[in-house]
Amino acid sequence: MRLRHKPWANDFITEHSQYAISNPEQYKGRWHEVFGNHNPIHIEVGTGKGQFLAGMSQQHPDINYIGIELFDSIIVAAIQKAVDLQLSNLKLLNVNAKDLTDYFDQNEVQRVYLNFSDPWPKARHTKRRLTYKEFLSLYEKILIKGGEIHFKTDNQGLFEYSLISFSEYGLRLKFICLDLHQSDFEGNIMTEYEEKFSGKGQRIYRVEAKYMNEDR
Amino acid sequence: MRLRHKPWANDFITEHSQYAISNPEQYKGRWHEVFGNHNPIHIEVGTGKGQFLAGMSQQHPDINYIGIELFDSIIVAAIQKAVDLQLSNLKLLNVNAKDLTDYFDQNEVQRVYLNFSDPWPKARHTKRRLTYKEFLSLYEKILIKGGEIHFKTDNQGLFEYSLISFSEYGLRLKFICLDLHQSDFEGNIMTEYEEKFSGKGQRIYRVEAKYMNEDR
Repeated sequence: MRLRHKPWANDFITEHSQYAISNPEQYKGRWHEVFGNHNPIHIEVGTGKGQFLAGMSQQHPDINYIGIELFDSIIVAAIQKAVDLQLSNLKLLNVNAKDLTDYFDQNEVQRVYLNFSDPWPKARHTKRRLTYKEFLSLYEKILIKGGEIHFKTDNQGLFEYSLISFSEYGLRLKFICLDLHQSDFEGNIMTEYEEKFSGKGQRIYRVEAKYMNEDR
Repeated sequence: MRLRHKPWANDFITEHSQYAISNPEQYKGRWHEVFGNHNPIHIEVGTGKGQFLAGMSQQHPDINYIGIELFDSIIVAAIQKAVDLQLSNLKLLNVNAKDLTDYFDQNEVQRVYLNFSDPWPKARHTKRRLTYKEFLSLYEKILIKGGEIHFKTDNQGLFEYSLISFSEYGLRLKFICLDLHQSDFEGNIMTEYEEKFSGKGQRIYRVEAKYMNEDR
């Protein structure tokens, strides 16, 4: 994604504190207070311009969604969508995913979405991939037992890597689709990127993986 | 594969007992005697016309290969290859894969190959797929601890199913390729079927999965 500096982004974020949560560390363990209910919380790591979470928020009003996005110049588009659609079950955090445990407590999140994450194709950048074991460990620290990661990408190499990484970490694969848009999967909400690239005939890969840390 | 009745097949098999082993149950636990060495044993379940195993036998003279094929009218082509190439490290069994434990003892096999297995696409035929859990249990009974299944197919549905089935069984995925012929994987030996269909631009999927029953 091209990053364009937007000098007004920071002010825009501050002005929309209903959707863009400032100082989110103060809500660690208390996100149900922010939403005013005890519905499950699903987060998306790398929310980008927010089309996926805006769509999911509308499709599933009984789920609370929180989008994490590092770049302020990008998250403003997601905030604008939440404002325009008045999505009470969507919040956005302009923070770094590696600090997730500063913002969420153990068992506070039910599901993590990863959509079209940066593939970091060079071997020396493996650790930056959001499906690298250190990230899987981070997600585990904030997810409920038996929590899930739902991941889609058009990048074959990242998908292959991620399946192996999930398996090595001990996650159980429970759903795999190797050509999402030619499948009978229902309820798919496309990201901006997905719309653009699947239109060109690019395959979309999707997997659901589950942490096997449940009490037995 | 089209099955053509070959009335001479049975005689042909009997005449080539050096390669086509009759009454293989007598060698259960003693296959090293048949080969005259203690090299690792790799089997292929559903060997078909034998191009894969004939190629592997030549490429890896230090491995003993055993091909399992139910249909006598098909296995004759594999036997012919072994005869023509005088492959001392290849044997062929005209038996049913569901009886594998009649022919192999615990820890006798190091690896199972499955190549372009029948996809049995209908849900009611799931149990017939060679990656169904009952087959995974069967392979486990004859494999060494930490033994592996190496599987390739052009069938997207069977591949998706198999990844889930492996994962649910507790196998660890250690290698995945979603487009084998466009990858840098080395030493691939093509089956007859693979040659035909990959020539038409069909993707070939490949996975290596490992049993996690090793002593720790």
